[in-house]
Amino acid sequence: MADDPKPTISMAELLKDSPMNWGKWGDDDEVGALNYLDPAQVLRGVAAVKSGKTFTLQIPVNHPGGDPVWPGRKEAQKFNVMDRGHFACNKGPHFPGALEYSDDVVLMYLQGSTQYDALGHVWYGDQLWNGYDAATTAGSMTKADVFPIAQRGVVGRGVLIDMARHRGKDVLDKGETFTHEDLLAAAEAQGTRIEKRDILIIRTGWIGSFYRREKEEFYKDFLEPGLTYSPELVNWFNDMEIPNLVTDTIANEVTFDPVHGVALPLHCALMRNLGITLTEIAELDPLADDCAADRQYTFLYTAAPLKVVGGSGAPVNPVVIK
Amino acid sequence: MADDPKPTISMAELLKDSPMNWGKWGDDDEVGALNYLDPAQVLRGVAAVKSGKTFTLQIPVNHPGGDPVWPGRKEAQKFNVMDRGHFACNKGPHFPGALEYSDDVVLMYLQGSTQYDALGHVWYGDQLWNGYDAATTAGSMTKADVFPIAQRGVVGRGVLIDMARHRGKDVLDKGETFTHEDLLAAAEAQGTRIEKRDILIIRTGWIGSFYRREKEEFYKDFLEPGLTYSPELVNWFNDMEIPNLVTDTIANEVTFDPVHGVALPLHCALMRNLGITLTEIAELDPLADDCAADRQYTFLYTAAPLKVVGGSGAPVNPVVIK
Amino acid sequence: MADDPKPTISMAELLKDSPMNWGKWGDDDEVGALNYLDPAQVLRGVAAVKSGKTFTLQIPVNHPGGDPVWPGRKEAQKFNVMDRGHFACNKGPHFPGALEYSDDVVLMYLQGSTQYDALGHVWYGDQLWNGYDAATTAGSMTKADVFPIAQRGVVGRGVLIDMARHRGKDVLDKGETFTHEDLLAAAEAQGTRIEKRDILIIRTGWIGSFYRREKEEFYKDFLEPGLTYSPELVNWFNDMEIPNLVTDTIANEVTFDPVHGVALPLHCALMRNLGITLTEIAELDPLADDCAADRQYTFLYTAAPLKVVGGSGAPVNPVVIK
Amino acid sequence: MADDPKPTISMAELLKDSPMNWGKWGDDDEVGALNYLDPAQVLRGVAAVKSGKTFTLQIPVNHPGGDPVWPGRKEAQKFNVMDRGHFACNKGPHFPGALEYSDDVVLMYLQGSTQYDALGHVWYGDQLWNGYDAATTAGSMTKADVFPIAQRGVVGRGVLIDMARHRGKDVLDKGETFTHEDLLAAAEAQGTRIEKRDILIIRTGWIGSFYRREKEEFYKDFLEPGLTYSPELVNWFNDMEIPNLVTDTIANEVTFDPVHGVALPLHCALMRNLGITLTEIAELDPLADDCAADRQYTFLYTAAPLKVVGGSGAPVNPVVIK
Repeated sequence: MADDPKPTISMAELLKDSPMNWGKWGDDDEVGALNYLDPAQVLRGVAAVKSGKTFTLQIPVNHPGGDPVWPGRKEAQKFNVMDRGHFACNKGPHFPGALEYSDDVVLMYLQGSTQYDALGHVWYGDQLWNGYDAATTAGSMTKADVFPIAQRGVVGRGVLIDMARHRGKDVLDKGETFTHEDLLAAAEAQGTRIEKRDILIIRTGWIGSFYRREKEEFYKDFLEPGLTYSPELVNWFNDMEIPNLVTDTIANEVTFDPVHGVALPLHCALMRNLGITLTEIAELDPLADDCAADRQYTFLYTAAPLKVVGGSGAPVNPVVIK
Repeated sequence: MADDPKPTISMAELLKDSPMNWGKWGDDDEVGALNYLDPAQVLRGVAAVKSGKTFTLQIPVNHPGGDPVWPGRKEAQKFNVMDRGHFACNKGPHFPGALEYSDDVVLMYLQGSTQYDALGHVWYGDQLWNGYDAATTAGSMTKADVFPIAQRGVVGRGVLIDMARHRGKDVLDKGETFTHEDLLAAAEAQGTRIEKRDILIIRTGWIGSFYRREKEEFYKDFLEPGLTYSPELVNWFNDMEIPNLVTDTIANEVTFDPVHGVALPLHCALMRNLGITLTEIAELDPLADDCAADRQYTFLYTAAPLKVVGGSGAPVNPVVIK
Repeated sequence: MADDPKPTISMAELLKDSPMNWGKWGDDDEVGALNYLDPAQVLRGVAAVKSGKTFTLQIPVNHPGGDPVWPGRKEAQKFNVMDRGHFACNKGPHFPGALEYSDDVVLMYLQGSTQYDALGHVWYGDQLWNGYDAATTAGSMTKADVFPIAQRGVVGRGVLIDMARHRGKDVLDKGETFTHEDLLAAAEAQGTRIEKRDILIIRTGWIGSFYRREKEEFYKDFLEPGLTYSPELVNWFNDMEIPNLVTDTIANEVTFDPVHGVALPLHCALMRNLGITLTEIAELDPLADDCAADRQYTFLYTAAPLKVVGGSGAPVNPVVIK
Repeated sequence: MADDPKPTISMAELLKDSPMNWGKWGDDDEVGALNYLDPAQVLRGVAAVKSGKTFTLQIPVNHPGGDPVWPGRKEAQKFNVMDRGHFACNKGPHFPGALEYSDDVVLMYLQGSTQYDALGHVWYGDQLWNGYDAATTAGSMTKADVFPIAQRGVVGRGVLIDMARHRGKDVLDKGETFTHEDLLAAAEAQGTRIEKRDILIIRTGWIGSFYRREKEEFYKDFLEPGLTYSPELVNWFNDMEIPNLVTDTIANEVTFDPVHGVALPLHCALMRNLGITLTEIAELDPLADDCAADRQYTFLYTAAPLKVVGGSGAPVNPVVIK
């Protein structure tokens, strides 16, 4: 990350009056604002389908040009354990009838591709979402891990807000910010209305640009564009009962809050405190092109990350149906 | 696997008159019968939604009781690289504002959980689906890998055939077989009609039983229940234009064809020759219970495996919307 | 492990009067009793060489029959990333001149084969060897890790005590114990004298038996044979200035102290408190056969584990020169 | 690697008259010129010991500044699976007596640190050392893998030739070459004699420079300094019965033969054809400083790589005793 600004304020101070949804869905809840996505919301999403066009939103894993990851994480490594080479060398297993096959293994960060954060993925003050003890994360998460989110799945009406296009850019600048007011302005310009309980999908162009940039330049003084913290923005997300925020950046918000210097306050305000699920590193460029073309920015959104028990997150390939 | 019967016939002989769809969708096709799932089919799937109930079909990864895998594969290993333990010991990174987080890595077989096979995953006679050279699988697949399937996604009308329930069992026996005629009989008993281009989902109870059985017993003389090869069955799948077969077994068919002793002939007849995608190790018990209760066996099925470049398969968590 | 006996005493109580070498070699020491192995000891080891016969003491990694590991650890997984299969399929790199090669990767527990423990590998009471804070182990060890041991290497006179042969057995029984008095009796019967600062190598036959036993039987109620705790034994090791204890068991001592029920007290008394390095899972059967044949039980011992920065241990293939 | 020169000659042509030791040590041999290291050579090595000073020759694994690897390989990844953080969070296992411990796992290229090549690691013309079929490398090596070398171990007299110091440099230049004549001249200048069956250790300063250079500069146009091919050099190695060549470079020879453009011909001429074992990426700077100081360039060399079954190579931490 960029040379860390020295904040004069801690996360706990910054968010001391921030709204909390702990307990709202019971003491055992581990899916938070996904509870908003009841069958009525599913049907509302289904009702948004018009033409039957579909899109998938995951970036590639094991791309020849490399995969974008948060600094410190490493790219996936894939190893073949069986393929035609083995059989060509007479080293494959002999199946009756002589079927041959390929097989492979991957080592990857659970948050090293498009993924859902577990609600307990980030915290401050020794407590996770819903008040769970942060000590439960040690070794493997036993509270508010990604499994309950994966078990439930995420289905509802999605709305795309194309901030990059709204600002007339291919990609927002490093550290460029926007607010919920900007989202509303962009929505209006698109002719779209963000409704309560919509799955909110925001395009900055950032991840798409990874594949066109030099890696060194992409990572240098790492600073993503994105939403920026304000109490009003947090309240707006809460009032709108947004269940899930999806972006094409690695961390869903500007890396450092430019006012207070705090890293990733929205992870805490939205996810830890309000239970809003975060989906990161989504590939939104083809979907955005299509929306710009047909002027339909709403759709059925379905996604379910891998059901990794104890995972701090898990990769996902969301499906959008227009 | 069980002591291999000695087949008197090779796969090539067995399937020498079996129908082929190579070239049907162009010389560059890598998604095969998924081409049947055009926007009209997507809309037909959407039209099957009634109540807004949803189900996810992946089994857990990293389950405390172990994960079911094909013999020779190994269970996933998950490693935490950051969690509260690091911060408690003052070994975590210092983010401005003092945010803390957990992070983890997984090593897993790409076919070690619920997954889509790449169309080129199995072959005989040195050619994969659509005639691609089997040599392209060496190192990492460069033709008919799972990426194009993941990129496209799978959306359509799904129909569940509950063979276990139809036969009055919790789980079919080891090596127990059934045919397309049995599927039709079960569908009729369910009050369901299998339509052309339906995503066909068959429950045997097998994977669900893994979590109740001793591991040793589950794997001993490994022999799954499932569909069994006949030319008529292959023709039926082809005529019905089935795009995708989903089961709750590790290999979608009885392990050895009991007539010829050949291992996994349907992988070759359906996938390699006809381009039908195979989805394995699905968790179907909760969905089946619900279908039995509300008598609705059809639904919108959406799935997209991880976009692993070169993968012989990739894990997936399908979403069903009733 | 076997059903854990309920100890009525904690490690801290058990060892409250046990001798300590903390600070003896300076506040920054991370190699403990290896300091005894000064050049004079190296030359004493060299002087033990008679015939020029050599032995290596590591067990295989990736053995077709499996590798013995402490319960909970997993066996190594090796993956080829390049071999003749790639070139046969025209998927290998094209080197000028057309050289071909194989290349591979391993995932293994650092203590999943013959290995040296870092001095800080086990502890009680929040302090490691030499008083380092146990918190320094979080994430990766930053004090008393295996690196300084690997950097220094271990060279001196080794002496083999063949307890199994002394007791007329191929392998000691599960949970069978012996004391330093038994070592001295065995040495005398062998015609060997254990000298001060000898590297002490004890054979129980245990690891060799792994390759002859059913795995299930080997691991059932896991209970290794080995040395058993007493204050006298601890004093003897300290007085003898033993720098390094090497055994053919996974944990160098009987799994549970049969008197107090405490698990692995010698790890704490000898390693944490006295700084004696522990080498585990050595293959001693061929060496022992040779010693029984030529009656030479002393030799030059050289070993250096892999220099893994932060490792809690590291694999090693010691070399013995007789 | 650097932009590959286009060779006008294949390895097979280049080496068509090169001497071969295939069959010299039997049809089943897998350790080649290590056979020269009989007990007499071991004793000759022992006789070189003077003062009892010791050195270890492995570079660090998991160094905070990164590990030098051949382009395309990746650095080791180490993951903790248990440490004080788990216990601090009450997530560690409860051992009777309350012992605590750390434990970890490593993923590494078997040739990603100081290592021995298996004799079958490189080849041309479909045959490995001793004539084994190159097809045996597929999946995991079943002939001339590193295991027999690791099982045997390497013990003999070592001689250090410090080419960098001889040329008055800290490190040889990229692509800088030298011949056996240069070795002899350097030996003479050192006052050392290279004897028959000596383990030949050559310092270029290359690996030591990795830790002082920018990574990008180290890898750019990858071209190591080293020995360069000539028929005379190959004959000299053969006549001298050199069992083992050890260097502080990743590939033991200049990357591309500057005369013919062929990559790594000495791997083929010395290892594949003559059975000379290659040890790469050794840390020689501290040893060389000491040799320069005390003018003793010969010593006992002991080394045994990890016993990885099927390995194309294996990491090693050699021990030198002066």
